[in-house]
Amino acid sequence: MPETEKMSLVMFSGDLDHALAGFMLANTGASMGMEVSMFFTFWGLNIIKKNEGVKSKGFLKRMLNFMNRGGTKRLTMSKFHMMGMGTGMMKGMMKDLKIPSIDEFIAMAKAQGVKMYACTTSCGLMGLDESAFRSEVDEMVGAAFFLGEARKAKISLFI
Amino acid sequence: MPETEKMSLVMFSGDLDHALAGFMLANTGASMGMEVSMFFTFWGLNIIKKNEGVKSKGFLKRMLNFMNRGGTKRLTMSKFHMMGMGTGMMKGMMKDLKIPSIDEFIAMAKAQGVKMYACTTSCGLMGLDESAFRSEVDEMVGAAFFLGEARKAKISLFI
Amino acid sequence: MPETEKMSLVMFSGDLDHALAGFMLANTGASMGMEVSMFFTFWGLNIIKKNEGVKSKGFLKRMLNFMNRGGTKRLTMSKFHMMGMGTGMMKGMMKDLKIPSIDEFIAMAKAQGVKMYACTTSCGLMGLDESAFRSEVDEMVGAAFFLGEARKAKISLFI
Repeated sequence: MPETEKMSLVMFSGDLDHALAGFMLANTGASMGMEVSMFFTFWGLNIIKKNEGVKSKGFLKRMLNFMNRGGTKRLTMSKFHMMGMGTGMMKGMMKDLKIPSIDEFIAMAKAQGVKMYACTTSCGLMGLDESAFRSEVDEMVGAAFFLGEARKAKISLFI
Repeated sequence: MPETEKMSLVMFSGDLDHALAGFMLANTGASMGMEVSMFFTFWGLNIIKKNEGVKSKGFLKRMLNFMNRGGTKRLTMSKFHMMGMGTGMMKGMMKDLKIPSIDEFIAMAKAQGVKMYACTTSCGLMGLDESAFRSEVDEMVGAAFFLGEARKAKISLFI
Repeated sequence: MPETEKMSLVMFSGDLDHALAGFMLANTGASMGMEVSMFFTFWGLNIIKKNEGVKSKGFLKRMLNFMNRGGTKRLTMSKFHMMGMGTGMMKGMMKDLKIPSIDEFIAMAKAQGVKMYACTTSCGLMGLDESAFRSEVDEMVGAAFFLGEARKAKISLFI
């Protein structure tokens, strides 16, 4: 019996456009029968933070998580954000075209068995623990776990 | 007979520097005998837009394509653009070193059989159809088509 | 005897956060027994430039290397640099968590046999020769060399 093909995605960027690209690939791959893993690290952690915000210890980390609050509602475009106008426009066009929102993409991914992991080191750096993340996130894992997945994957991308 | 090795590149970023990196890899790969596919998505679509501009329907999309006009002539650097000075400098240095321009790189890629695809979903989002793109572009395809190529590729990169 | 698994990383971005992600993966891969190659190109060259600065010929290139001076000490974050405050904060948090600095990561990578290459074409474009780079850098190589490595690698990422 042939093994299921794997795809592993590093989600490094935390912009609406990168999130969209990542979840489009993840959901398409899963619907083609691939086993998909997503590793959220650095700014990418913003995509899977709870929308209601995060409490973290220490002044610097609290400040960082205030400025860098995250959550799908707060993702902005990497270009043409224009104080919200460009990002709002993009969300409007996504709706018009019936392209799922990031929230819907996350739910679809979960339903299709896509695994979502938060990078332990980045979490340490940003003062985040499991309570910072949405319920769809499976686990906090390190770089070695990611490489263990990626070495078996047909497709690995750094997004 | 061994199968030809494949390389598949997602061209997500639309800056001069990312375009240069992508076409350098694509052309080098093709000259080494690889079958190369490039999937232009999101800002990357700017690289393959016609230089003469794009007509799109709807006020918002028209506005987006005005601000985000694209075409090889309008690509700028992701850093040190400095209102055109940095980008102009880079182009000058490329010429001095006889590094091909992006237009020349696209022609070389085409001549070497590199396939160039525009992502259907991004095109929908940005109000673009086939008429927006240069003649070297082969087709509009979806994410499933890309993943079908990438799963057979030795090298897949998200640029 | 099975061949050693390979990983090849294109280091295109020259920010502190991308450098951190790249060296975390490279060092983890090497410690798992992988043969790791890093190809520094474009802004990524800044990561491996000597901290004491670079002399290059020609006014434009001198100007470019003045603005784009590079060296591990000068790497900044791709977001929240905030005139040094954000970057300083990040470095402070890295220290607190005993995450190695980029200098330490480079030394660890070297000690573990990670190969570090500078892209010949980018070096030409930016007026850099071998004397611009730290002693840990192995060689200047072209895109064909990179693709030769990547085609044999289990994991290739564009960072």
